[in-house]
Amino acid sequence: MNKISTAVLLLATAAFATASRAEAPAAKPVHGEYKDWLTLSISHRLEKQLMRTILGNEVAIKAARAGNTKPWPDGSIIAKVGWKEKTHPNWPQAVVPGEFAGAEAMIKDSKKYAETGGWGFGHWEGNKLVMNDKEKSATCFACHAPMKDNDYVYTAPVLQ
Amino acid sequence: MNKISTAVLLLATAAFATASRAEAPAAKPVHGEYKDWLTLSISHRLEKQLMRTILGNEVAIKAARAGNTKPWPDGSIIAKVGWKEKTHPNWPQAVVPGEFAGAEAMIKDSKKYAETGGWGFGHWEGNKLVMNDKEKSATCFACHAPMKDNDYVYTAPVLQ
Ligand code: HEC
Ligand code: HEC
Repeated sequence: MNKISTAVLLLATAAFATASRAEAPAAKPVHGEYKDWLTLSISHRLEKQLMRTILGNEVAIKAARAGNTKPWPDGSIIAKVGWKEKTHPNWPQAVVPGEFAGAEAMIKDSKKYAETGGWGFGHWEGNKLVMNDKEKSATCFACHAPMKDNDYVYTAPVLQ
Repeated sequence: MNKISTAVLLLATAAFATASRAEAPAAKPVHGEYKDWLTLSISHRLEKQLMRTILGNEVAIKAARAGNTKPWPDGSIIAKVGWKEKTHPNWPQAVVPGEFAGAEAMIKDSKKYAETGGWGFGHWEGNKLVMNDKEKSATCFACHAPMKDNDYVYTAPVLQ
């Protein structure tokens, strides 16, 4: 093989390696119990380029169906599951989930979490739900505080 | 009451009436059986200003979890549930579901729907699933045909 064709081959290999890295799907995430929960709503956060689905455990779905969400009953858990936005490879005007970006939780327990409106804030690490410490919960709560009249919840259930 | 204050009152009433009409939530839709189905994925169709959640019946979710979607097994039903996009009233960078825009279905029955890739196309009218006639199904199928290598399905399951 002469020098030029070797160089071309190396370049082609490099290009191929780059292309396949870019195309490689992100590692399949391990989802928590929310993967068996029904939908409350969905959202697309433009400023964060994140797409979300908002799911509820049985207590939360039952409450949403009954319109019993002011306040949400103790035992309600709301999961916000997010992905980076991505353009659908075959339909450029469709924005769809790309890489998994994590899942957060709000758990209603009016006594345990009385200091933060009755809601505990947490997130899933793999399939394990980890509650935030007081300091971190305070920053979550601060951002949800303007929704006081809606029991600190932004999401309006739409499938109920 | 003098003429000016009457006029002001009338104007104020008219403005108020307009505002409350604009704010009135759309009539609560009646949802089909898909309201009890788990999530395959979500999408935001920019050109149609529609937000969607893509749900699967038990057969479809089981297939998605097993990675058994080439082809999807007979009995799979995929529902695409759509809402007009809306800006969240308290968080302008969040796009959330507004008025309900309808729900469409793809049902896998490789014999019955052999002419259209094994998929029957339909939509829910209230809580009743109505299958499209051949002519309408052909227009659905035409648009899904480029996804042949993916069993005519655009959606990649992301919660499984
Ligand atoms: C910068 C503001 C902000 C902060 C900080 C914030 N949130 Fe939220 N949160 C929102 C908004 C806006 C929504 C609704 C739109 C959406 O889907 O993102 C939301 C929605 C949620 C939901 C779905 C239920 C609902 O209220 O609609 C959960 C669960 C949630 N957040 C958990 C958390 C947790 C846990 C933290 C802290 C670790 C947190 N949030 C911090 C703004 C915030
Ligand atoms: C103009 C192109 C086009 C036409 C026509 C069309 N579809 Fe689709 N369909 C799409 C695209 C793109 C997606 C994926 C993105 C999304 O959520 O909209 C999709 C997704 C779907 C899904 C979710 C499963 C999947 O393939 O991802 C269903 C169900 C569906 N369509 C049903 C129908 C039915 C029923 C009709 C006809 C009445 C129809 N479609 C006509 C483009 C089309």
